[in-house]
Amino acid sequence: MKKIKIGILGCGTVGSAVDKLVHKNHALIHSRTGINLEVTKIADVSPRVHHPKLVRDAHRVTEDPDISIVVEAIGGEHPALEFVLSAIKHGKHIVTSNKELIALHGEQILRAAEEKGVMVRYEAAVGGGIPILGPLSHDLLANDITEVFGIVNGTTNYILSKMTRDGVEFAEALAEAQKLGYAEANPQKDIGGYDASYKAAILAGTAFGHLVNWKDVSFEGIAAVTQEDIRYAAEIGYVIKLLAVAKKAHGACEVHVHPTLVPKNHPLATVLGPMNAIYVKGNAVGELMFYGPGAGGMATASAVVGDIIAIANAKCQMTNARSKAMHVRSANETVSRYYIRLTAPDRHGVLAGIARAFADEKVSIAAVTQKETIGKTATIVIVIHQTREENLSKAIGRLKKMRVVRQVCNIMRVGI
Amino acid sequence: MKKIKIGILGCGTVGSAVDKLVHKNHALIHSRTGINLEVTKIADVSPRVHHPKLVRDAHRVTEDPDISIVVEAIGGEHPALEFVLSAIKHGKHIVTSNKELIALHGEQILRAAEEKGVMVRYEAAVGGGIPILGPLSHDLLANDITEVFGIVNGTTNYILSKMTRDGVEFAEALAEAQKLGYAEANPQKDIGGYDASYKAAILAGTAFGHLVNWKDVSFEGIAAVTQEDIRYAAEIGYVIKLLAVAKKAHGACEVHVHPTLVPKNHPLATVLGPMNAIYVKGNAVGELMFYGPGAGGMATASAVVGDIIAIANAKCQMTNARSKAMHVRSANETVSRYYIRLTAPDRHGVLAGIARAFADEKVSIAAVTQKETIGKTATIVIVIHQTREENLSKAIGRLKKMRVVRQVCNIMRVGI
Repeated sequence: MKKIKIGILGCGTVGSAVDKLVHKNHALIHSRTGINLEVTKIADVSPRVHHPKLVRDAHRVTEDPDISIVVEAIGGEHPALEFVLSAIKHGKHIVTSNKELIALHGEQILRAAEEKGVMVRYEAAVGGGIPILGPLSHDLLANDITEVFGIVNGTTNYILSKMTRDGVEFAEALAEAQKLGYAEANPQKDIGGYDASYKAAILAGTAFGHLVNWKDVSFEGIAAVTQEDIRYAAEIGYVIKLLAVAKKAHGACEVHVHPTLVPKNHPLATVLGPMNAIYVKGNAVGELMFYGPGAGGMATASAVVGDIIAIANAKCQMTNARSKAMHVRSANETVSRYYIRLTAPDRHGVLAGIARAFADEKVSIAAVTQKETIGKTATIVIVIHQTREENLSKAIGRLKKMRVVRQVCNIMRVGI
Repeated sequence: MKKIKIGILGCGTVGSAVDKLVHKNHALIHSRTGINLEVTKIADVSPRVHHPKLVRDAHRVTEDPDISIVVEAIGGEHPALEFVLSAIKHGKHIVTSNKELIALHGEQILRAAEEKGVMVRYEAAVGGGIPILGPLSHDLLANDITEVFGIVNGTTNYILSKMTRDGVEFAEALAEAQKLGYAEANPQKDIGGYDASYKAAILAGTAFGHLVNWKDVSFEGIAAVTQEDIRYAAEIGYVIKLLAVAKKAHGACEVHVHPTLVPKNHPLATVLGPMNAIYVKGNAVGELMFYGPGAGGMATASAVVGDIIAIANAKCQMTNARSKAMHVRSANETVSRYYIRLTAPDRHGVLAGIARAFADEKVSIAAVTQKETIGKTATIVIVIHQTREENLSKAIGRLKKMRVVRQVCNIMRVGI
């Protein structure tokens, strides 16, 4: 009977859920795996609850000779990085749900772990409770994975779902998300697309088996999405989702996060509220979807404790990104369809001028709708065919210089 | 560099796809795992193609001292069982996609493998290319899995999807499925619910960590589902799907396969054609869905070669069912809502009589609709509240004896 002692860094939502889950399912885990798990210490500088295992100094966890696995549940870059490196230095295996830490410092952490001969696992960093890095690292190894994409941030998905369903503006949906605990007091990491970009980098690295530098991930958040865009998108058969996308072709990849118009009948369009869903395309299996809760204490703890069991089994090391880095294409090198909403005076010749600006930059228009006129201003919604962002940017530059264009209100990607 | 020699039994759709996939993704698998896979022999008594690796005698594979992993891709009980046992006896690890073999003889095979110290993996036996047994055996080990259910047979799902979309009867949809290769010339294993029942037993065993005897699985197929049922179900907000269901409670489980009325807005309702989707409920993670191609050569080969790689890594042994068997509740012990379609003369007092028959057996009616009358016969569709099958059977027995009931046309479960 293996007795495995666990130390947890951080006693917030995730840390306390991990402690609770190890206790709750202890007998079941033991009967199925023969492993005897025990959380012996939880470190937190400002614990919100009293707990017999609580210590204030993280080093009492990272340096405890009895502890073999350290769960990092602090979040953010610092001091999580320093504590994790200290734990590795003291020979501990690491389990973390911290996407920012892995996306920004994964290479350094994995190198330190390799030198020390310890394991690092981070299933909970992407998709919360959904097993996705495990399947990509093991079950799907027979495949050349060419694409991974999906909804990986519950906060923004809740906000967009609410804007779509209730017809409210971004600010109101955000306030509601904060009230329900789906968004933090400072929601910038979620709504600015940072969180999704960290996850996109980790997904790409795991799926393609190469290091993907987070700095190469282009991303934007959802703060610019308006009720007007949601309505116009609906009219042409789409819903707006924040998608994380990683595609591989010809030895390089593209990794990006953008608000995207998703066809209404696509399964991703039906992923609502705080749920996550990740598509995987492989050259043998075809298309798979993994769907489940992307956040929440117990769901995240499910993945964390799954990683703990895998380490305790001393099997199933996650396929870490190879040291060889992969070229990530810049946004300028990638192609997409786009939705553009702009305003212009409601008079003849305007559309012709706009069409010419696109044509001059070899950007081809797929559909145009002139929407309701307010005063003398018309709203024009344009969907363009596959184009490089570079060409689009030049065309938009032309539009902005044209007298007949009042404002380019929003630009979003279209399709999956 | 590990060189792993593989022998394949059966050169049909799955066997030849495994050979093709090992060849196609050889370099990628090698670069990601360091494993060098090679298919050296394929045994088939009546090969449809010429192939340099083909041998006619399966024992040239099962007894080949150079082969370390044998892929069984013959299907069915015999001679697959004998060949697999022979391969185990000669120290080979086994990978199979054969649900019938595992559901009916899994215990014997696993015992033989354990004695010989070899591994047996069968990810492809459930959900085709979808990683489901792997996640249940590894990634989700922190959970008490309480339910697994879903659409696990592509043939019947194609037929039901076609009946729903095109308004055709069962016979026509089956003929179309056979034409497209989704159904075999002898489709009884699929349409009779056998295939789904094998998968249900394997899913339950893997999810609950206990042996589940296939003989305890109650099942029925889809041959009795008529266009009329599909239409009436649609009217009350449902689509009909063949669901495999495994639930655990109070130390026992129920495992069954039945045509079921699924609410239209449930994600399972949108799983069409030959696709599969499996829901998993765990006490930590909540609800997950795994979606993907449930059959097809390359999708199945993805799972088979994934198992080969896992064995070659000498890690990640699938959590085999514990020797302790689990009590499977009989259908009489389980409760469900039901849909009942019957015909009766169109005159007053009939409905009162029918309602009394249900009430006398403590079966409570949730909704009744009297449908169009043809001649003097009315069709009555009844949805009843949660009830034990035992009580339902008694009520149906009463109905059948009543003069005012012409025919009890169909009975199906309602809801997830």
